[in-house]
Amino acid sequence: MAYTYLKELVYEANMEIPKEELAIVTFGNVSGIDRAAGVIAIKPSGVPYRKLKVEDIVIVDLDNKLVEGSMRPSSDTKTHTLLYKNFPTVGGVCHTHSTYAVAWAQAKRAIPNLGTTHADHLVQPVPVTEIMSDEMIMNDYEHETGNQILDLFTKEGLSAEEVEMVLVACHGPFTWGKDPAKAVYNAVVLEEIAKMAYLTLQINPECPTIKQTLIDKHFFRKHGKNAYYGQE
Amino acid sequence: MAYTYLKELVYEANMEIPKEELAIVTFGNVSGIDRAAGVIAIKPSGVPYRKLKVEDIVIVDLDNKLVEGSMRPSSDTKTHTLLYKNFPTVGGVCHTHSTYAVAWAQAKRAIPNLGTTHADHLVQPVPVTEIMSDEMIMNDYEHETGNQILDLFTKEGLSAEEVEMVLVACHGPFTWGKDPAKAVYNAVVLEEIAKMAYLTLQINPECPTIKQTLIDKHFFRKHGKNAYYGQE
Amino acid sequence: MAYTYLKELVYEANMEIPKEELAIVTFGNVSGIDRAAGVIAIKPSGVPYRKLKVEDIVIVDLDNKLVEGSMRPSSDTKTHTLLYKNFPTVGGVCHTHSTYAVAWAQAKRAIPNLGTTHADHLVQPVPVTEIMSDEMIMNDYEHETGNQILDLFTKEGLSAEEVEMVLVACHGPFTWGKDPAKAVYNAVVLEEIAKMAYLTLQINPECPTIKQTLIDKHFFRKHGKNAYYGQE
Amino acid sequence: MAYTYLKELVYEANMEIPKEELAIVTFGNVSGIDRAAGVIAIKPSGVPYRKLKVEDIVIVDLDNKLVEGSMRPSSDTKTHTLLYKNFPTVGGVCHTHSTYAVAWAQAKRAIPNLGTTHADHLVQPVPVTEIMSDEMIMNDYEHETGNQILDLFTKEGLSAEEVEMVLVACHGPFTWGKDPAKAVYNAVVLEEIAKMAYLTLQINPECPTIKQTLIDKHFFRKHGKNAYYGQE
Repeated sequence: MAYTYLKELVYEANMEIPKEELAIVTFGNVSGIDRAAGVIAIKPSGVPYRKLKVEDIVIVDLDNKLVEGSMRPSSDTKTHTLLYKNFPTVGGVCHTHSTYAVAWAQAKRAIPNLGTTHADHLVQPVPVTEIMSDEMIMNDYEHETGNQILDLFTKEGLSAEEVEMVLVACHGPFTWGKDPAKAVYNAVVLEEIAKMAYLTLQINPECPTIKQTLIDKHFFRKHGKNAYYGQE
Repeated sequence: MAYTYLKELVYEANMEIPKEELAIVTFGNVSGIDRAAGVIAIKPSGVPYRKLKVEDIVIVDLDNKLVEGSMRPSSDTKTHTLLYKNFPTVGGVCHTHSTYAVAWAQAKRAIPNLGTTHADHLVQPVPVTEIMSDEMIMNDYEHETGNQILDLFTKEGLSAEEVEMVLVACHGPFTWGKDPAKAVYNAVVLEEIAKMAYLTLQINPECPTIKQTLIDKHFFRKHGKNAYYGQE
Repeated sequence: MAYTYLKELVYEANMEIPKEELAIVTFGNVSGIDRAAGVIAIKPSGVPYRKLKVEDIVIVDLDNKLVEGSMRPSSDTKTHTLLYKNFPTVGGVCHTHSTYAVAWAQAKRAIPNLGTTHADHLVQPVPVTEIMSDEMIMNDYEHETGNQILDLFTKEGLSAEEVEMVLVACHGPFTWGKDPAKAVYNAVVLEEIAKMAYLTLQINPECPTIKQTLIDKHFFRKHGKNAYYGQE
Repeated sequence: MAYTYLKELVYEANMEIPKEELAIVTFGNVSGIDRAAGVIAIKPSGVPYRKLKVEDIVIVDLDNKLVEGSMRPSSDTKTHTLLYKNFPTVGGVCHTHSTYAVAWAQAKRAIPNLGTTHADHLVQPVPVTEIMSDEMIMNDYEHETGNQILDLFTKEGLSAEEVEMVLVACHGPFTWGKDPAKAVYNAVVLEEIAKMAYLTLQINPECPTIKQTLIDKHFFRKHGKNAYYGQE
């Protein structure tokens, strides 16, 4: 078995999805990249987490060609590879159907930045894509899902290093990070932010976003050269 | 003990109900059919999941006559048998009182198709029956519950192979599938869809249903001859 | 150790409270009665479930006098004893602070009968007491809490055998049954009914209560001489 | 290893945070003080609970200088030390990002006293600070977070012995108590109160606060010289 290390990393990251209750049954998938080898490892399509094994993880190249594995890769594979090709610092990508993040995605609403839990992780609202055109849906759907994300980031001037999460309209969240574990970490954080924002607006529908100074304080105590949160 | 294989299958499927938190205490029941033998296996009435054993599973024929078992079958047995008689491809039926699905059933609202989690499983809204007439309630209630479902499917032109779930007004969900495990899988999916739709409409009460092209894309990548989701 | 059997029964019933997530930390208490001996067994006051042992269960008589035990009985003991004295068929009483039932009690709203999960257990709405007068609060509070329940049942013509649950306004639920286990079972059911009713009215604020024929059908298939639900 | 006893106490209290689901991943922190030695023990910054060990707990003095430990202390350390310096009876401080308490904090709403679960623990609403000024945020943020709490308690005439919890606007809850375990206990209670108040106001948006006599009854049966709740 080649790419053992990558498969194990990706397997462990996938198994966090049911543990963290980010998706039911077979939903969701995590991938990781070996940029030197030009391949990604990803969950096989439609396999329940309860039955998933390390050796089921599929290896494909960045053109979505099967490199190793006896199973069909996730149907979302083309979205993952497009993100890796365009976000050069990304080492892992995670897609879930976590309940509150999906609710915001279905509502076609960006998640406003209402507090420091959000600001600890990103300065901006969690952005939401446009609804896809019929042509894109019927053409090459999963590839176009990736394009929707890239177009949104271009249009809004967002950096994939600063904003590691997005909502695909009518669908659900994609998150990423330096490795597969960080991608899943961001999916956990996104679900919590989504739930907190939901409840906050139920309690106070007129709640304004938090002030820019407080956003910056929280974001930059965790990120960048003056960060003092954590052990690194 | 006859029908051992069927009893084990049905026992395992019933035990998923508490594991997946689809019902509390004794609520809910799953059955499976052996069409060659003309019998179904079903949970005994009112037995707590904590105490349920394989040998408690009851065998009845399609006229609801006891074939094997020392316990009384589920009080909902007549609903199950009527569905089996009219939906010839169904191998398992599941009834739960899962919280969010019950809430939609009590509200007498079909669950609108608001996103791809729903569209992955069915094109239509999750349909809801009419409120039963007094005459039907007082006559043969559980048999008439099945008739309510059949009438709804006829009236709305629905196929039991395409739509494997329904809400019975004021009561709760019934789901089915090719075998008992698939019936429970559909109950898990329905509860998640019900919760997501609830939250989506709380966030955006004007949220439209998703466009037909996107529904079709998601449904037909999982179902039919051009499906490319999963391993089959 | 006297009353061992009763203490064990009451201990087991109390330990269901954290298992069923009906209350956090030390909240809630279950009691059971030995009518021949004229005593009840009840949880000691303020002891966390994590530390509770069988021998901590306290025995008091129906005048609230300590009979056996090294700990102080639940501060709600007088409410329990008053219910036992006035509801002669009751064998166990349970008080919790379960979240959704408390929310209805704090909202001073009876829980309307919106579906068959409710109708399976009681015909009526779950009733809620009046707010207690200042005089009653300052006089003998826990005894008067019991009186509030008794007054409500008299005023509304309710039977403690038919309606085994009540909401005390601004406080939370009391439930009872033929034994301590049934009292806790009713607390589990009440919490689920409370959550379902909450969600139903969020989805459809104009949702009517279910029709009387359907209530009667569900209630009397589980209760009374023509019952056919369960194994008894 | 010095301060072993204090480190173990603080480690155990921190490990209650994930057990009680008061925060995800690395969020939240608990500290405890040894007033004789003039030091506090606190969670290291950014360490996931899954990996936290007793020996990771950091010792700092009341001027926030490192006394013992190989890791950087929680980024919220200055808030903790300021509270210890100004609240002389406090033995433990806890900060979480528990979901419902954060929602109220983000909504900038004090949690009204709507029932006896709340009144058992405090007479007042759970207070919420002002939004911090830009100057305070940019100056010495975590120290100023402590000042916001102290200013609120002075302005509203609150006692830290009677009110052991506060919401920091746009951020989340801080709780305290005679020792680290009691601080976490109060965080568990606060989250439950926050959820109950949220649900109550969803059911009855016009729900009034509970009457003063009932608040006093519940508070003083648990606190003060006439208390009769619990075993002490």
